[in-house]
Amino acid sequence: MPKGFLAAGIHCGLKKKRKDLALFFSERTCKAAAFFTTNAVKAAPVLLGMDQLSRGDELRAVVVNSGNANCMTDPGGMDDARRMAARMAALLDTSENNVLVSSTGIIGKRLDRDTVLGGMEKLVRALSPDGMEAAAEGIVTTDKFTKTSSRTFRAAGSTITITGVAKGAGMIHPDMATTLCYVMTDAAISRPAMRTAFRENMDLTFNSITVDGDMSTNDTMLLMANGAAENRMIRKTGKDYEIFRKNLLKVCSDLARMVVLDGEGASRFVEVRIKDAVSREEARKAAKSVAGSLLVKCAVLGGDPNWGRIASSVGASRVSCDPGKMVIKLDGKTFFRKGCPVRQVDRKKSKVFKGRNVLIEVSLGMGKGQATVYTCDISKKYLTLNSFYTT
Amino acid sequence: MPKGFLAAGIHCGLKKKRKDLALFFSERTCKAAAFFTTNAVKAAPVLLGMDQLSRGDELRAVVVNSGNANCMTDPGGMDDARRMAARMAALLDTSENNVLVSSTGIIGKRLDRDTVLGGMEKLVRALSPDGMEAAAEGIVTTDKFTKTSSRTFRAAGSTITITGVAKGAGMIHPDMATTLCYVMTDAAISRPAMRTAFRENMDLTFNSITVDGDMSTNDTMLLMANGAAENRMIRKTGKDYEIFRKNLLKVCSDLARMVVLDGEGASRFVEVRIKDAVSREEARKAAKSVAGSLLVKCAVLGGDPNWGRIASSVGASRVSCDPGKMVIKLDGKTFFRKGCPVRQVDRKKSKVFKGRNVLIEVSLGMGKGQATVYTCDISKKYLTLNSFYTT
Repeated sequence: MPKGFLAAGIHCGLKKKRKDLALFFSERTCKAAAFFTTNAVKAAPVLLGMDQLSRGDELRAVVVNSGNANCMTDPGGMDDARRMAARMAALLDTSENNVLVSSTGIIGKRLDRDTVLGGMEKLVRALSPDGMEAAAEGIVTTDKFTKTSSRTFRAAGSTITITGVAKGAGMIHPDMATTLCYVMTDAAISRPAMRTAFRENMDLTFNSITVDGDMSTNDTMLLMANGAAENRMIRKTGKDYEIFRKNLLKVCSDLARMVVLDGEGASRFVEVRIKDAVSREEARKAAKSVAGSLLVKCAVLGGDPNWGRIASSVGASRVSCDPGKMVIKLDGKTFFRKGCPVRQVDRKKSKVFKGRNVLIEVSLGMGKGQATVYTCDISKKYLTLNSFYTT
Repeated sequence: MPKGFLAAGIHCGLKKKRKDLALFFSERTCKAAAFFTTNAVKAAPVLLGMDQLSRGDELRAVVVNSGNANCMTDPGGMDDARRMAARMAALLDTSENNVLVSSTGIIGKRLDRDTVLGGMEKLVRALSPDGMEAAAEGIVTTDKFTKTSSRTFRAAGSTITITGVAKGAGMIHPDMATTLCYVMTDAAISRPAMRTAFRENMDLTFNSITVDGDMSTNDTMLLMANGAAENRMIRKTGKDYEIFRKNLLKVCSDLARMVVLDGEGASRFVEVRIKDAVSREEARKAAKSVAGSLLVKCAVLGGDPNWGRIASSVGASRVSCDPGKMVIKLDGKTFFRKGCPVRQVDRKKSKVFKGRNVLIEVSLGMGKGQATVYTCDISKKYLTLNSFYTT
């Protein structure tokens, strides 16, 4: 845990038994950078958070409830979110504007406000430098495991820590600050430096993953820096910035990877690399099309190196391509080269697509554009969870 | 069956037991209108068919094999398709250019040409005015049932018949001449009239359905008119055109509906109507987003009127919308009106989303744009079929 940060997670009663309320708190005021969902339908706490951060980018705390998304809950939903911020601000002796609120869970059902507000005192009492695991439990819904990652390193004359926590599973889409993700650091860092580093890392991590193509109404991604490491201020260029950026990338990568691996019953982690596209944008488009294809996901689930479906989903993305120039490799083995199938596979005997990690590489032979997207296979468990469990 | 048309379906040996070769034949030369896949990766017979029809829009026959898509099968794939056309043309005593070839099945595996060519004589001998059902069996892959529809009506001083046959299941996307679909009529109709009627009907039927969002490499949709009804020529306007167009629409609607219902294990038929969008294009975009959402499909599978997921997928489509103006009705019951949830539902007791047909209506309150898209739920059987069966 970075210096000066505390966390807590408790059960307040929104869920039957599991923890459903979490708090991340900094003893000093933090600089904050955030990305919120681009879904046109935004939950009340997202709208409140956008408003708060547009007024000033300083935060002391984040309070998160799981079990209810507080989305499409007018009249009253926005008031519920505000009351959560106000109550927590009073308990922490800070301003309402310095407490960010997040919610995750069912949409369209009014939040049980009394239950949440009633749990807050206990939550604050539970704050501890060792509270991260409990807090990580407090923010999950259908996740199979909690997701945290931490890096400690030397930079700018001091020892700096970056710790992140995320909630994933379902509703993950590459297009935005996906899922709930809170990253805390004790680095002293300038606002432009932290914003730039955070945005770049977003593109390489959370914006490059996809589980089921749906973008949530509540997605929030936050970076808080409290300066407690008392290092020389990290600015937007130079060696210290690079060290910070790389460590932030590791934390975000870890979390994004865990979110994919937890893709509601996923059995395999899939990396889709598109090379030699006309542009980076086209490479991303093709990679997303392959990663998002239900038939490709099914092929991965079945351990079937069905490169034809992969070619078809590249073609369906409408990027410039030509089978006569395309090369398809699966788990490092070439299956199709410039118009011609290279090998016939006995899917039962082949080891391709049988491991926990699957690599799909397609060279389009059209230019220099490259992109990588991460996803998982789909499982029967995904259907069971999302059909017979109300999220 | 329209006058002057014959059909046949046999087993030639591409599949183990089921029929795998079909023929549709007209005793007279037909005018033809066709739509082929817009996937950048096109199967050899699609490329051949596009070339043939660009040279002249007359056809006598369509020969279709199932079990192998003859796609990404260079070198040799195009030659295989040409040889199929040539052999059939010789047997039917017509020109090679008048025989359209279609293939469906596994991608990237060379077609067993000798098996297909070897079956053709038997196929031609089996031609019969009653051969449609056998032919419909010959074009399917994972379909649970064959799909045919027919209408006979009076127009332009004569009795006219329109008969269509389709193959669906998986790989269905609203974006183009989806699936394999052949429509035959004995009407005498001008080229502009048949093209216009066919294109309009496409938009309302096959381009408005989605099963799993993937667009196939082999999709082909064909209309053939042989004039054997000897009616007064139907031109692009007037009462006779309207009668023809409406009956063609009924046939295409029937087939598109059957394709959705056969969506690889689907249990419910879903109609998504978006109203009051800024434009028709935005309405279509939102409708496709809802119909394509895996989480919405799961909610339908589970009989769960989860209108929050529907609102979320409308929002994720990035059309202009505002929950404060949105009205959501499921199976005719209002669940959300202009910012506020209208009712809380006990999903176990509610009858909504429990029937064979499900209706999702969303008014965006932004303008006059409307669109309807048809889809099905997703099932565990879909996963089994597409994971452990090579298509």
